Amino acid sequence: MDYQRVFNQAIDRLHAEGRYRVFIDILRNKGSFPNARCFAGHNGPKPITVWCSNDYLAMGQHPAVVTAMEDALHDVGAGSGGTRNIGGNTHYHIELEGELADLHGKQAALLFTSGYVSNDATLSTLAKILPGCIIFSDELNHASMIAGIRNSGCEKQVFRHNDLAHLEELLAAANPDAPKLIAFESVYSMDGDVAPIEAICDLSDKYNALTYLDEVHAVGMYGARGGGISERDAVADRVNIIEGTLGKAFGVMGGYIATDQTIVDVIRSYAPGFIFTTSLSPVLVAGALASVRHLKASAAERDGQQAAATRLKTMFADAGLPVMPSTTHIVPLMIGDPVKAKRISDILLAEYGVYVQPINYPTVPRGTERLRFTPGPAHDESMMRDLTNALLEIWDRLELRLAA
Amino acid sequence: MDYQRVFNQAIDRLHAEGRYRVFIDILRNKGSFPNARCFAGHNGPKPITVWCSNDYLAMGQHPAVVTAMEDALHDVGAGSGGTRNIGGNTHYHIELEGELADLHGKQAALLFTSGYVSNDATLSTLAKILPGCIIFSDELNHASMIAGIRNSGCEKQVFRHNDLAHLEELLAAANPDAPKLIAFESVYSMDGDVAPIEAICDLSDKYNALTYLDEVHAVGMYGARGGGISERDAVADRVNIIEGTLGKAFGVMGGYIATDQTIVDVIRSYAPGFIFTTSLSPVLVAGALASVRHLKASAAERDGQQAAATRLKTMFADAGLPVMPSTTHIVPLMIGDPVKAKRISDILLAEYGVYVQPINYPTVPRGTERLRFTPGPAHDESMMRDLTNALLEIWDRLELRLAA
Repeated sequence: MDYQRVFNQAIDRLHAEGRYRVFIDILRNKGSFPNARCFAGHNGPKPITVWCSNDYLAMGQHPAVVTAMEDALHDVGAGSGGTRNIGGNTHYHIELEGELADLHGKQAALLFTSGYVSNDATLSTLAKILPGCIIFSDELNHASMIAGIRNSGCEKQVFRHNDLAHLEELLAAANPDAPKLIAFESVYSMDGDVAPIEAICDLSDKYNALTYLDEVHAVGMYGARGGGISERDAVADRVNIIEGTLGKAFGVMGGYIATDQTIVDVIRSYAPGFIFTTSLSPVLVAGALASVRHLKASAAERDGQQAAATRLKTMFADAGLPVMPSTTHIVPLMIGDPVKAKRISDILLAEYGVYVQPINYPTVPRGTERLRFTPGPAHDESMMRDLTNALLEIWDRLELRLAA
Repeated sequence: MDYQRVFNQAIDRLHAEGRYRVFIDILRNKGSFPNARCFAGHNGPKPITVWCSNDYLAMGQHPAVVTAMEDALHDVGAGSGGTRNIGGNTHYHIELEGELADLHGKQAALLFTSGYVSNDATLSTLAKILPGCIIFSDELNHASMIAGIRNSGCEKQVFRHNDLAHLEELLAAANPDAPKLIAFESVYSMDGDVAPIEAICDLSDKYNALTYLDEVHAVGMYGARGGGISERDAVADRVNIIEGTLGKAFGVMGGYIATDQTIVDVIRSYAPGFIFTTSLSPVLVAGALASVRHLKASAAERDGQQAAATRLKTMFADAGLPVMPSTTHIVPLMIGDPVKAKRISDILLAEYGVYVQPINYPTVPRGTERLRFTPGPAHDESMMRDLTNALLEIWDRLELRLAA
């Protein structure tokens, strides 16, 4: 057994497919997002504009968030020092869980170290608590949900993306007595489309299934208080479990679920991924608490983001660039080839100081490689014009096709 | 299907076994660890002394760590804003990975959002990259290693705790051509004993197996530069993959592996738990970087911890308390019953302002429930005397047995 050879082959496969990943080495400039610095090795150091951050509303630089983190750091120190059960349950955690439960109109919430872990831990544990459970999963559900479902060891039925007829067909064909869970997202982050939450809840009622909704690309950004698409569509009370993140629109780090008290109690008591891990640093929790509270009261960031996204989509479309039909804040340009997508991204960074990461397999299906822009309230009109002009020059140079 | 009934039954089982967990609501006081505040609902608010923190060296309040975090917060903001591949790869991450590789004398290191995730992601991915892999796992390996091994779907062979003869027996019986991985810990955190790393590496050489060593309860605390037991025993170069945490002795949050460049490249390219998650906040990374650097140069914290652990073990033994035979900084008192362990812990908190969490199943096997004390450089002689006296009073009141 030659281990080195096997590992090298695994890496060679990535190079051969043009999807070996190079991490761009940056530091964002607090106070002037989306501006950042790019470091040596990537045509730097030099100033760049970040167009692919998931800190969608620039809350990572909001004074309320920064001040709350600084205060917590000086009050209680750097880390929590333990698991939630052994020394790592701080008063900040309790407060944030209360705030998140309120945000989604649920009895309780539970924090995890990341959104990935919240999906993996909750889905895998729920299905184990419910023997014989069948999980009905949207085919475009992202990796952490797939991990949780696989790790549960239970039966999985995949329904075509947002396809209610297919979902109902599968539900109707399943054993009526088996526990059932429908797992789906609100905003699908690589295409920017939205799930029909209410209609899915109608089906869950009809077939006595639980519903699990991932709102990581929606919390903070949709609904009057940032409760996500389920708040915007006034259906949060019909969803059993809402999962969210503190690392995207809220600008910090961490994940959570909001649901019934009993389900929170089950997950916190039985999920290894919750139990056996150092809890979130109180510094992060304090920052997230300030961010959630701010976005509950302020719509300015949400409105700014929606205006920026609409403007950029219009500019791209007017220029004939292949903008995909997103109905949300996500602005993807379809390229359809991993090598070309990386080439465009490389030129943008090296020559135009524009940072947008190429999105390739396994994040999206092969043949649908794309550039994914996330304009936010801090991206202004002149940045958008510069970006559009840069893309048009590159399209010309690489002889790519524009719409008529 | 009555979901509520099933969930309630799951919770009722915990109550019936006396192991339903109540999280103690605290805030530590930076600058005066191990002192903390306990909140209402737990006989508070009132001052307490924390005796069960995994912030073993009190680095969570070290000025170098706090200053580094404050500087990063003001330079680059709260969160990273993305995955390592999409906007979330900051210069701090690169620097810390270099520092950790150097700490363990390895070519490279890779950061994860937690130690739990580093074990789960690395073990499950390694075994998938090596088809037919057999993992040899110490029976006391903790939950995140078990999760990674289970999630890999590969064959697992469990060897008796630290039992070289049993490990060799299993290795010798396995297909000589199959890829093999021996997964074990250096310090077992609930008993405080240590693995025979060198002898395990001898076996790995003999049977051409890779070695995976979890040092989460040792990094920062053992070895001349805090490289763990593998540094202390001068065997780090013989271990293929060393896994560590930034959330215990380093006082912050996060996990990592240190290993060959090729293995890092494989894991960062193939592990969903690494790829599809927002990277560690740069604020945490900056703090961890300062902590690792400090503990490389300073032995004062390590020496202080060892002195405190030795002193407390002596006091407990002299008093006749059932201290377990730990050879490390862990000081466990065997209780052997979940209800009694919780009762003692409750009295300590309510009447003596002493916070030590009862450790029950599934963290330790049933019937071995215990109180686990983690004295550090900030626990002084008078705190230890007060603690020992409090325990003796409780032992008397509950009519528990003391050694002769």
